Amino acid sequence: MSFKRSPLLLSSALVGAVAFAGTAHADEGMWTFDHLPKAALQKSYGFTPDASWIQHVVQSSARLAEGCSASFVSGDGLVMTNHHCANSCLAALSDKDHDYFRDGFTTRDLADERQCPGMELDRLDTMKDVSGPVADATKGKQGAAYAAALQEVESKLTKDCVGGDDAHWRCDMVSLYHGGQTALYRYRRYKDVRVVMAPEQGIAFFGGDPDNFDYPRYDIDLSMLRVYEGGKPVHTPYLQFDPAGPKADDLVFTSGNPGRTQRGLPAAALAFQRDVINPTVIALYSVREGMLWQYGRESAEHAKQAEDILFGVQNALKSFSGTQSALQSSDIIARRAKEDADLQAWIDADPARKSAYGEPFKAVDQAIALEKDLFTRNLALSMVFGGAVNNVMALVEGANERSKPDAKRHSGFHDAQLGEIETALGAKEPFYPELETALFALRLTSLRQTIGADDALVHLALGNDAPDELAARLIKGTKMGDPAARLALWKGGLKAVEASNDPLVVFVRKLYPSYAALREQMRNEVTAPLHKAQGDIARARFAQAKADGRLDTLYPDATFSPRLSYGTVKGWRKNGVDVAPFTDFAGMYHHATGSEPFALPRRWLDAKGEVNPSTHLDFVSTNDIVGGNSGSPVISREGKAVGLIFDGNLPSLAGDLYYDINNNRAVATDTSAIITALKIVYHEDGLASELINGHR
Amino acid sequence: MSFKRSPLLLSSALVGAVAFAGTAHADEGMWTFDHLPKAALQKSYGFTPDASWIQHVVQSSARLAEGCSASFVSGDGLVMTNHHCANSCLAALSDKDHDYFRDGFTTRDLADERQCPGMELDRLDTMKDVSGPVADATKGKQGAAYAAALQEVESKLTKDCVGGDDAHWRCDMVSLYHGGQTALYRYRRYKDVRVVMAPEQGIAFFGGDPDNFDYPRYDIDLSMLRVYEGGKPVHTPYLQFDPAGPKADDLVFTSGNPGRTQRGLPAAALAFQRDVINPTVIALYSVREGMLWQYGRESAEHAKQAEDILFGVQNALKSFSGTQSALQSSDIIARRAKEDADLQAWIDADPARKSAYGEPFKAVDQAIALEKDLFTRNLALSMVFGGAVNNVMALVEGANERSKPDAKRHSGFHDAQLGEIETALGAKEPFYPELETALFALRLTSLRQTIGADDALVHLALGNDAPDELAARLIKGTKMGDPAARLALWKGGLKAVEASNDPLVVFVRKLYPSYAALREQMRNEVTAPLHKAQGDIARARFAQAKADGRLDTLYPDATFSPRLSYGTVKGWRKNGVDVAPFTDFAGMYHHATGSEPFALPRRWLDAKGEVNPSTHLDFVSTNDIVGGNSGSPVISREGKAVGLIFDGNLPSLAGDLYYDINNNRAVATDTSAIITALKIVYHEDGLASELINGHR
Repeated sequence: MSFKRSPLLLSSALVGAVAFAGTAHADEGMWTFDHLPKAALQKSYGFTPDASWIQHVVQSSARLAEGCSASFVSGDGLVMTNHHCANSCLAALSDKDHDYFRDGFTTRDLADERQCPGMELDRLDTMKDVSGPVADATKGKQGAAYAAALQEVESKLTKDCVGGDDAHWRCDMVSLYHGGQTALYRYRRYKDVRVVMAPEQGIAFFGGDPDNFDYPRYDIDLSMLRVYEGGKPVHTPYLQFDPAGPKADDLVFTSGNPGRTQRGLPAAALAFQRDVINPTVIALYSVREGMLWQYGRESAEHAKQAEDILFGVQNALKSFSGTQSALQSSDIIARRAKEDADLQAWIDADPARKSAYGEPFKAVDQAIALEKDLFTRNLALSMVFGGAVNNVMALVEGANERSKPDAKRHSGFHDAQLGEIETALGAKEPFYPELETALFALRLTSLRQTIGADDALVHLALGNDAPDELAARLIKGTKMGDPAARLALWKGGLKAVEASNDPLVVFVRKLYPSYAALREQMRNEVTAPLHKAQGDIARARFAQAKADGRLDTLYPDATFSPRLSYGTVKGWRKNGVDVAPFTDFAGMYHHATGSEPFALPRRWLDAKGEVNPSTHLDFVSTNDIVGGNSGSPVISREGKAVGLIFDGNLPSLAGDLYYDINNNRAVATDTSAIITALKIVYHEDGLASELINGHR
Repeated sequence: MSFKRSPLLLSSALVGAVAFAGTAHADEGMWTFDHLPKAALQKSYGFTPDASWIQHVVQSSARLAEGCSASFVSGDGLVMTNHHCANSCLAALSDKDHDYFRDGFTTRDLADERQCPGMELDRLDTMKDVSGPVADATKGKQGAAYAAALQEVESKLTKDCVGGDDAHWRCDMVSLYHGGQTALYRYRRYKDVRVVMAPEQGIAFFGGDPDNFDYPRYDIDLSMLRVYEGGKPVHTPYLQFDPAGPKADDLVFTSGNPGRTQRGLPAAALAFQRDVINPTVIALYSVREGMLWQYGRESAEHAKQAEDILFGVQNALKSFSGTQSALQSSDIIARRAKEDADLQAWIDADPARKSAYGEPFKAVDQAIALEKDLFTRNLALSMVFGGAVNNVMALVEGANERSKPDAKRHSGFHDAQLGEIETALGAKEPFYPELETALFALRLTSLRQTIGADDALVHLALGNDAPDELAARLIKGTKMGDPAARLALWKGGLKAVEASNDPLVVFVRKLYPSYAALREQMRNEVTAPLHKAQGDIARARFAQAKADGRLDTLYPDATFSPRLSYGTVKGWRKNGVDVAPFTDFAGMYHHATGSEPFALPRRWLDAKGEVNPSTHLDFVSTNDIVGGNSGSPVISREGKAVGLIFDGNLPSLAGDLYYDINNNRAVATDTSAIITALKIVYHEDGLASELINGHR
């Protein structure tokens, strides 16, 4: 789970607004395969990928629908990805006698391989620029007519592309450079994906949270899958496995699907993240971390109850803290301010541009000035609605939204989306009243602390109760921990919600109008103007690069579609200490204290005398990656697999916002470690030989 | 306790280094009484304090040795200060049948007044500039010879000043403007201070931590003392009590003893606080807050155990967060960078100045570059030594230091200071093994999280244990919770410490060499060069002001000696909302939910129908105050008492570093509230009449 970050729910006003472009510096960029920075690569590394190299990498790469990347590593359909990308499969296959997630999964022949329920793997087949047809279809249209025309052309293009065979093909329209370009990507779909091998969680995530997003690391975050069709392994192009791994200073590539970046955020928005959003969120999450830490110490049962939430909080904390630390220590904001000013000057220099793009930076400043006043209040109030309370908010909000015509509802509550909410409400998630009470009481305390005891909202929420009293009473009295009760209320709609006497429903219903009004104000006066301004900025930047003939130095923001990044195997300097690029098995054994999360699995302890201690285990490189790249192969200039991406270091957590070659590092497991583990620790000689020979 | 901030132990490298001068802007400044900004006052307020006004205020003001300010408010020795300044007195006088801290203390006549053990009150008598004699005595001397000469002249001057009567007089040499000036302050000492009246903690600190350092407030943070000599109340000048309180926009003064400011810190040091120190400390303390919050929820006993530490952590968090928020939202760092550059240019313009002051800003940059590498490691390690572990560190460090000759020991361990350590080690402080274990385990976890599991120090500390295992074993096995055991080891010296088998002593002994080495490096390579550079900067700034004839616009950094500040009764704008300057009794009753910490004492609830709801309760003003000003009187231009300082708002917490008239506010209890409370709530008509009439 180390690379799947918690969704950044809290900066909603700034999320998803920008998807345009960065002008690449050395090693920077997540490049589409039809638009690689060949000149820069030749200049920096004396290497130009030719058409066959590119096609080979594209066809050997894959995407897992659940948010990971992967690669084919044998001609018999063998696929390499991360352990944390196969967690849900391993959990689903486990039973009361087997915990494959914890203890690993091994097979001796094809018959032992087991299908991962619901897992789909997509392999990019073709890319096509459809900017022309899209522009033609939407020409001169505005607002709803524009949206309808866009939806119509998308529907037609993807339907033609799939050609009636959606069992084998999937087609996505991908908006690049914030609409500067539109592409149609066709993927070959594979729906029979089986697990072949997975190591123990104890080595896949050795070091746990203390090591998460950090380096040196000693993890083999691996799972091996196999893709079948018609009951037989498929035969596709694949990356030859290099059992030697890379060397320091080698040029390496990663092929994967980075999820989302905002590389062109205006300086004012970056400063707002640094000065307001991140400090507030980090403080609130840190308190929650301490609370959950102590809760987990109280008993084994409490530890089990709190484990997942604590991990999620720690994961989010690392993400926010890493971003914050990078924003604080770099000059990115000053540089961006200059870029912003330059772009505005370019806009201002031409009346046509002025009329097309206006003064977007002024609009950003105005929206953020207002957000400064609203942010803390909105955040504190939003944070009240977590856990069980969150489900009740979905009920109350859903009931209100559903009573409106579809077109007037807020995003997330359209008819087509209601199934998803219903599934979530009906999910049999554990409900621990003690933990719910503690978390709810803390959230209420934070609300009061953050916006002040005199605030009307606080009076409305708490009345004359202390936070702990109120939380205890509501959680004790509610039936909303029961999925059946939630579904009944969901099905009953607004009438049932308004008639409910459930104390938690009554509480949420009471706060809902204030909450809805505040969110409405945020939406209309902050998010919408920011979104519009950021779109104008993105399009202006794209137009400027096009006009200057610089489009080849520009890469689009990440969109969870296939991209190539390049870089060097290289350490960095952390807190005044040089960090070497490689770790080895000796380091792993030194790192193992025997206490969780530094306890190695039995098999690894047993193998200590048999492995060469200087065998490389993990390495870092300057490749530009973000969440979604989990499971990406690291590829040599010869087109061979030399590693497996599974994490980024702390500074790379600011990779959503910008790339810093001095500090950002991608973290990978070395192929030499994978071969050594398979041969010596797991005695999986067949699998090792398949990797080395490229076939079974 | 709301205004006594926790000592800022953590920024030790930056502490105490600067004590020079700020150039005052409107309402800014903590002015010595012999150097008031008369021109600025006349210009802004059309008011010039004359000699008798000044003398009257000086002689009516007082300082409490434990770190508070106070004032005489009747001719019969009646003194007004904060409730939180009399906490230790009220606790000491309490017994199993009386909790005067919680329930308040009232008297009907002099015979009921009870002496506060150990309390001393000092009243400034004379101020004398002794810069000349000090310069003569130290002329041409360097290093140890300089220090010896300085100590000799200080000893002589203060001895002469006391004139053999140290029962009645106390004399302090005060270094102002970082040695730019030296003054000799003579105080009249009073050692028989009795408590006359104190309200309940529930109204003195109504709103508890949620309201602490915030505003609107509804506190009567008052205690009344009386100074005796020879068994009789003393008769001194006093501030006439104005039972009407101030009006909005009134000019008001505070007379008090601000503790410590660093108003001239170089921009690089401010940026280091903003970017490194504050975020790190806030995150670590927030986790601890959450942990203690949950610990306190586990049982009434746990709540009691954790209460004081939790309050300390929350208090420190507010302090750091307030400072951080101010540093982030203001342009102080950019402005200071310009001032720094201007000062260096002034130095560079003259060879004599260049040779006198050198390049101090470059030296600051170098020291901070190194501190960046050492800070986190040093902080994480220092934080391991808290609670019981801290006592053991004092034993181990003390034993090592005492084995050196006095002159070679580190500050804090000279012969003259050993008594203080011994007293602390022998103190019967509660020792709760469960709480000690939880805190120790969390500290060890933070250590590992902060500097990484592979760090040699982490290996040394944890070995193969998980933090919780180690903490539990050491706390369970130690005898160091017992003051007698600690004292025995202290008396046994290095030999006893080295021979001890106590597991906690063994643990600390093992870490001590690394800890000592790291601190030594911090001291020599960070603190000392910073201190020297900051001294050079301070003296250059003073010399520049002198040369420019601008000394009258310069005030010295706070030194816990008597100062006057001036300002206006005025609200401010907080999170986009205007905050009015006054609160009233109606607001207080609205604020009272009945749940802690918003539960009013019984007497206050009973009086609800009898008080005029629009009577003013608390107010804010623009006066420039910091910690140490607790208990300062607020004084009208007529020289009357109109309020009682007890807190600052959140932005004012950055007052150590700079003053911002738009946001910093001093928080005071209104004299009209005090009179109303005494008459209507407490039926203390005698005391009310003494205040109004100026005598009993």
